[in-house]
Amino acid sequence: MRKRLTTRFTERFGIEHPIALAPMDKVAGGRLAAAVSAAGGLGLIGGGYGEATWLDQAISEAGNQRVGVGFITWSVAQQPDVIEAALARAPAGLMVSFGDAEDIVAAAKAADVPTLWQIQRLSQAEQALRAGVDVLVVQGQEAGGHGMDRGLTALLPAARDLAGPEQIILAAGGIADGRGLAATLMLGADGVMMGTRFWATTEADGTAAAKAALVATGGDDTVRSKVFDIARGVDWPWHFTGRIVANNFLNRWHGNIDGLKDEAAAQQAIYEASDPDDFSTRVLIAGEALDLVVSIETARDIIEATVSETHALLSKSSRFLAS
Amino acid sequence: MRKRLTTRFTERFGIEHPIALAPMDKVAGGRLAAAVSAAGGLGLIGGGYGEATWLDQAISEAGNQRVGVGFITWSVAQQPDVIEAALARAPAGLMVSFGDAEDIVAAAKAADVPTLWQIQRLSQAEQALRAGVDVLVVQGQEAGGHGMDRGLTALLPAARDLAGPEQIILAAGGIADGRGLAATLMLGADGVMMGTRFWATTEADGTAAAKAALVATGGDDTVRSKVFDIARGVDWPWHFTGRIVANNFLNRWHGNIDGLKDEAAAQQAIYEASDPDDFSTRVLIAGEALDLVVSIETARDIIEATVSETHALLSKSSRFLAS
Repeated sequence: MRKRLTTRFTERFGIEHPIALAPMDKVAGGRLAAAVSAAGGLGLIGGGYGEATWLDQAISEAGNQRVGVGFITWSVAQQPDVIEAALARAPAGLMVSFGDAEDIVAAAKAADVPTLWQIQRLSQAEQALRAGVDVLVVQGQEAGGHGMDRGLTALLPAARDLAGPEQIILAAGGIADGRGLAATLMLGADGVMMGTRFWATTEADGTAAAKAALVATGGDDTVRSKVFDIARGVDWPWHFTGRIVANNFLNRWHGNIDGLKDEAAAQQAIYEASDPDDFSTRVLIAGEALDLVVSIETARDIIEATVSETHALLSKSSRFLAS
Repeated sequence: MRKRLTTRFTERFGIEHPIALAPMDKVAGGRLAAAVSAAGGLGLIGGGYGEATWLDQAISEAGNQRVGVGFITWSVAQQPDVIEAALARAPAGLMVSFGDAEDIVAAAKAADVPTLWQIQRLSQAEQALRAGVDVLVVQGQEAGGHGMDRGLTALLPAARDLAGPEQIILAAGGIADGRGLAATLMLGADGVMMGTRFWATTEADGTAAAKAALVATGGDDTVRSKVFDIARGVDWPWHFTGRIVANNFLNRWHGNIDGLKDEAAAQQAIYEASDPDDFSTRVLIAGEALDLVVSIETARDIIEATVSETHALLSKSSRFLAS
């Protein structure tokens, strides 16, 4: 019999497993989001900075599968038409991260679309809760891509204490298997959001070279930095850093951000001129969960292995009990 | 009936609960270590940089309780007499962290004293395992005091995969209650090491003002920095940072480490001249678990509440299972 895991999250979204796809920009397209939803999770398309045409295409690619969409808050906050277009597609959920999303949440509520708001520090949780988000996503610094400095271990139970027992909470950052899912359920989460693990799938958008590089590297190889935001000329709020795999370009500038800013235009030109698959220069975005990524799998295989491992761990957890 | 938790760690050390005291320099004295051991955990005295007289006194203060001792590796590696003196007291365990400890582990083995070796990155685990440590302590960046950049969520299961199923592993960093203990058991640990939570106890060495400051602050208020090592003139290897509560002194220099180094002597004088309880200047060492520290407790109350909460979480974890 096929195993399932039931939490408030699965009940609220009518899905089989408490596993969501992180809406990774350029990686979580319609194909990957549909595969996650088809396997019983919640697939979220990476709407990123809000490129309307790409988003439209990705939603179409997802076909008949119920998928949601996620955005970078500070970028789409300036583009109400993008949010409007996304809501008009009646997504399974609208996720926001990195900034004040009160207006976006209000618009989603008016459209009867469930909302997910990702936070990186405890101080950000209050605003999200006040806005009445359906799901609070708590992201640890372990995560790939943009984030902040707090680890998941204390932040997650602290967010639960703040939010109260009824709030749906997902854990994100460093989770790639059933151990991470079982652990975060113990810390107070109702499910997990996985990025790096789903990046290393057959369905993720991205080249074979990029996926091979993910398998070849580990968590120790990653670092949080501002280097690639500057190299790509993307104006991120200063307190958000990006976790990426360290490379020559990173190593040259990571300790000299002021120097990089001084010659930003020249370095941006060098960056843009490099081969997109040359990861000694180009950014490879991934999180500490790379340690647990040793092969490219299908999204379904990952979800089924994760659920099965979580089942086994929780079922035998009474072995620790004595009196 | 009094509840217990059984793991390889409790069996190896003949203790009731899989909870160890982090050997916090200047905080984990004989009184606190004895209180943790008396309550069924493993108390470890903070031997720090290796001050022989202080250590001798702390071990005497522990009285009849079986306690261990922990040291900063790179500092005591230059002081074989300190290690020799500690081993001569037949401690319950000898812990090392921050550096190459192969010789120290060999000396402890010869003296039949169990060893604990704390690592901060996966790449450090191999050396510790090759040395044949009894306990591998995996410390996430959430931890207070010195550490590195890896979060616990992925590092811990990765260390388990590397070490194999038989190695005893403790999790450290961001853990302050039964949620953290239950979670890290799921991630592959055999128990936890708690620092910040035990710092906020009646038995910890430290002033009432320091303990009140711990209760008044949260994880968001902490940061990893080199500032206080420079301000105190302590020559830590560059890759180790210290997690402390941010204050005026920190905020002035955190973004300008080169400037601080340029006037290190003057700033050290300002630092040393300040009131030891003036935490706008003085360092207050603590980890992200501060979010979960809302009152000063006895070590016994903390251990019993943690074990009881872990019991409850593991006992009811089958509620997530469906098929």
